[in-house]
Amino acid sequence: MKNMKITVAYDGTNYYGWQKQDGYRTVEGSILRAIDKVMHRDVRLATAGRTDKGVHAYGQVFNFQVADNYTEDNVRRGLNSFLTGDEILITKVEEVDDYFHSRFSAKGKHYRYILNTDRLMHPMYRNYKGNTIHSLDLEKMREGAKLLVGHHDFQSFTNSKPDEPINTMRTIDSLEIVQDGDDFIFDIKAESFLRNMVRIIVGTLHEVGRGKRDLVWLENAIKKADRTSAGPTISAAGLYLIEVYY
Amino acid sequence: MKNMKITVAYDGTNYYGWQKQDGYRTVEGSILRAIDKVMHRDVRLATAGRTDKGVHAYGQVFNFQVADNYTEDNVRRGLNSFLTGDEILITKVEEVDDYFHSRFSAKGKHYRYILNTDRLMHPMYRNYKGNTIHSLDLEKMREGAKLLVGHHDFQSFTNSKPDEPINTMRTIDSLEIVQDGDDFIFDIKAESFLRNMVRIIVGTLHEVGRGKRDLVWLENAIKKADRTSAGPTISAAGLYLIEVYY
Repeated sequence: MKNMKITVAYDGTNYYGWQKQDGYRTVEGSILRAIDKVMHRDVRLATAGRTDKGVHAYGQVFNFQVADNYTEDNVRRGLNSFLTGDEILITKVEEVDDYFHSRFSAKGKHYRYILNTDRLMHPMYRNYKGNTIHSLDLEKMREGAKLLVGHHDFQSFTNSKPDEPINTMRTIDSLEIVQDGDDFIFDIKAESFLRNMVRIIVGTLHEVGRGKRDLVWLENAIKKADRTSAGPTISAAGLYLIEVYY
Repeated sequence: MKNMKITVAYDGTNYYGWQKQDGYRTVEGSILRAIDKVMHRDVRLATAGRTDKGVHAYGQVFNFQVADNYTEDNVRRGLNSFLTGDEILITKVEEVDDYFHSRFSAKGKHYRYILNTDRLMHPMYRNYKGNTIHSLDLEKMREGAKLLVGHHDFQSFTNSKPDEPINTMRTIDSLEIVQDGDDFIFDIKAESFLRNMVRIIVGTLHEVGRGKRDLVWLENAIKKADRTSAGPTISAAGLYLIEVYY
């Protein structure tokens, strides 16, 4: 058997997230069906980062074992030919050593959030950008971003269920914000993320950027380690898994 | 009664074009339903340019009569509140004199076509850009564009039914092509257009740009005034009605 590392881009609009769930249209479910059609096999995928409903990816990564007669090229072509609807595109297939695991071997991930501030944002962006009617103070948000970078308890920045005790310590390696016309683009890199962490971070920085909250509030939101002390979970529409680093 | 000029943006992906048709989801049909909900009236819309299935608009224009108690602002808010799904957005409402007719008063229209050349175009653009696997010669296409600008018989560049004799003389005021990364952006302005004219022009310039056809062929395609002598009708996905001039 060969271990294949697969990079995949998708438009998450019409999917109930990555993870296979019976009765729902999911990205993983569609890929498993394509694999079954190409290889007539039921397989298990190891995946770098499960994305939620409506979240998009440029460079999601998964891996699985294929029979020795498959090449990188025919895995890519075969899967793409059965991924109909053009919503999912396998962009790269690489044979990797047996020890490679898309999740456990990952050194980090890069997520991007696009937040548009045009009151008359064109309807074509409704599934691809978040939108706010408030004007945002870029410098204030950058000051807020500085407070979030580094090693912290991000308990306030996750919607994990409270009865599931998990380690909420995480390290944000970088959090950069640039403005491009009406768009504010947030680029966040970390070794790993908690559930909804990027969307809550952007939702929290939005509160600071619009002037509803200040930096002291944000500092306290981190310190308090309590979900209610941070900002809301912003919509999934503007979120992209850009790349997984190995 | 007041005559209201309405500017509307829409994502045409999930619509069977502008024009109302029983049994189909159309942009005009959705707007008429919103008008009926706001004003409890059945009206007729005059429209600048009917767009086809899958074509988008930034600045489509229509007009209709409203009762004197309506203001520009409450027409805009009222219609937007009933245009659910965020696929259609009324961007401007202006009271105009009684003689204004969105179609007959129009001095010209601006259409844009976005043609992407990335073999791995991200799935999120599948409904918003045309796509080709060929690399395109910008200068050759610009030479071809020069041949098309001006007053010509555009019989070769329309899919009008042959049993509908219409005047196929049209004047293209400008046809500019710019490259932005993997995208080629075609901007075409004319007083009026024939059915599918922009898509056939881009489909024809694409044949020249990829090197399959030369400029002599294009010159003949114009002269022959016969649909089969020009290039194919390119997909609707990359086409936008940008603006109507008055």
